[in-house]
Amino acid sequence: MTLIYKRVALIGLGLIAGSMSLAIRRGKLAEEIVGYARSQETRDIAREINLVDRVVESAEEAVKGADLVVLAVPVGAMGGVMEAIAPHLKEGAVVSDVGSVKQSVFDAVMPHMPEHAHFIGSHPMAGTEHSGPRAGFATLFDNRWCLIVPPADAEQAEVDKLAEFWRAIGADIEFMEPERHDLVCAVVSHTPHLIAYTMVGVADDLRRVTEREVIKFSAAGFRDFTRIAASDPTMWRDVFLTNKEATLEILGRFTEELFALQRAIRTGDGDTLFDYFTHTRAIRRGILEAGQDTDAPDFGRTKAAKE
Amino acid sequence: MTLIYKRVALIGLGLIAGSMSLAIRRGKLAEEIVGYARSQETRDIAREINLVDRVVESAEEAVKGADLVVLAVPVGAMGGVMEAIAPHLKEGAVVSDVGSVKQSVFDAVMPHMPEHAHFIGSHPMAGTEHSGPRAGFATLFDNRWCLIVPPADAEQAEVDKLAEFWRAIGADIEFMEPERHDLVCAVVSHTPHLIAYTMVGVADDLRRVTEREVIKFSAAGFRDFTRIAASDPTMWRDVFLTNKEATLEILGRFTEELFALQRAIRTGDGDTLFDYFTHTRAIRRGILEAGQDTDAPDFGRTKAAKE
Repeated sequence: MTLIYKRVALIGLGLIAGSMSLAIRRGKLAEEIVGYARSQETRDIAREINLVDRVVESAEEAVKGADLVVLAVPVGAMGGVMEAIAPHLKEGAVVSDVGSVKQSVFDAVMPHMPEHAHFIGSHPMAGTEHSGPRAGFATLFDNRWCLIVPPADAEQAEVDKLAEFWRAIGADIEFMEPERHDLVCAVVSHTPHLIAYTMVGVADDLRRVTEREVIKFSAAGFRDFTRIAASDPTMWRDVFLTNKEATLEILGRFTEELFALQRAIRTGDGDTLFDYFTHTRAIRRGILEAGQDTDAPDFGRTKAAKE
Repeated sequence: MTLIYKRVALIGLGLIAGSMSLAIRRGKLAEEIVGYARSQETRDIAREINLVDRVVESAEEAVKGADLVVLAVPVGAMGGVMEAIAPHLKEGAVVSDVGSVKQSVFDAVMPHMPEHAHFIGSHPMAGTEHSGPRAGFATLFDNRWCLIVPPADAEQAEVDKLAEFWRAIGADIEFMEPERHDLVCAVVSHTPHLIAYTMVGVADDLRRVTEREVIKFSAAGFRDFTRIAASDPTMWRDVFLTNKEATLEILGRFTEELFALQRAIRTGDGDTLFDYFTHTRAIRRGILEAGQDTDAPDFGRTKAAKE
């Protein structure tokens, strides 16, 4: 494996950056991985578990001499980080991110990019409900999608290099324009997360009615929602604030559909419900046929202490 | 293991009845398991895979001489089945069901119950997104909850026997009154299923916008919904039609919460979102501490061909 980038700087040391570091080491893809996180605690943990080769005390310091800089901070923080590191970027450095939205990242980052450097967005569609420096693992990106979102005027050679890098990390690559990226993600990720957060919030509110029963009997369906509703709050706050239009658009469609089903329940229209449920079942099949989930009952769930 | 019921009759031969049969055999809990299903195809499959000891051609025939009769048909079909089998029940037989709602099952079944027999409801809170006679497995109920819902005037000795039977099948027992059962299930199961069905329906609708991308990138969150949205359409139609009040009540609270979050997104109120997401995260912890789900990332999901 020839080195694509000699030195990689990771700004932010959470689940994604940590997993990138471990995957880069696994593939011997860089000579040195330098990392910085805003929180002292995170930096200490990163040093303790040897998450990266060198943990430094500032983002400016981290990017010095780096051939690739990865912004792995919440979307809302990217503009500020970019502004801080811009003057310190190596000549011809590539800057990328791992944010779940893209248009607003472009808007926040581009104004600060120096002429000599290249910004190319990436969105590794991988992660778990866990977060923080201890949550990372080297195989996180294996056979998962990484959407690469280049600006209109990107240099093709640099885009190809970044794609090659993500492939070496284990991911499958797809190229997308920022607007389309944000719409697709609103459908497959952002709105489902908001719905899950809401359902979990409602159930918790009802614990006043149902005491511990909500948790005790959660295996009946509810618990499937609690996993994605346990994702990092800061990250998701920023996702919704920065992909507002697309999320609100999909939410509008969701409530429209929900009201139609609610009405069918109220009026006892069983045929509408049956047809709807039959149809959605076919979509699950499509996902299984596309190899996007396991067909094992219950996700082949690892048995919990008590299910 | 002393026999609790010598002969068990299973009306309906889907996932639940099939799994009961296999679990009863595993524990040698009955001398004979007789089964009937309305569809010829299901009866043929049941015979082919030897799902029960004897498959008969009518529900009336199935219950003859049975000490325990289990109605494992959709909730909407229970009244009709009960009416048909009532005259043929053995003296002192126990009739139970496995429906996901209880009040309406009582309403449908009780008027037909002969004086000499005993109806006691059960709700094994177990299942997978798969259905049909081939979907069953002996361990389905192991360490899962089975809610036993006796009528107010039930004979305690019969209730205890049924509880003992379910424990021998592998389940943990909890007793509940019908109204409370229906409310708790509306929260932990019924409403979450309707929400999942809706989200999946919306995403499918958007395939016009996003082509295959909805399925291709479903691992980003959406696919978690598609599992429970793949459950048996007939069963769920009946659940919503028969637990109407409780489901609509919880749905009302859900839309109320959703609109509050939607408003926070529209107005850019990040604090509200952050607090909400932090709170829901704690609920996931509660479920894990209660041993109700696995803490393995991604449910410890069996890797799909391509995730």
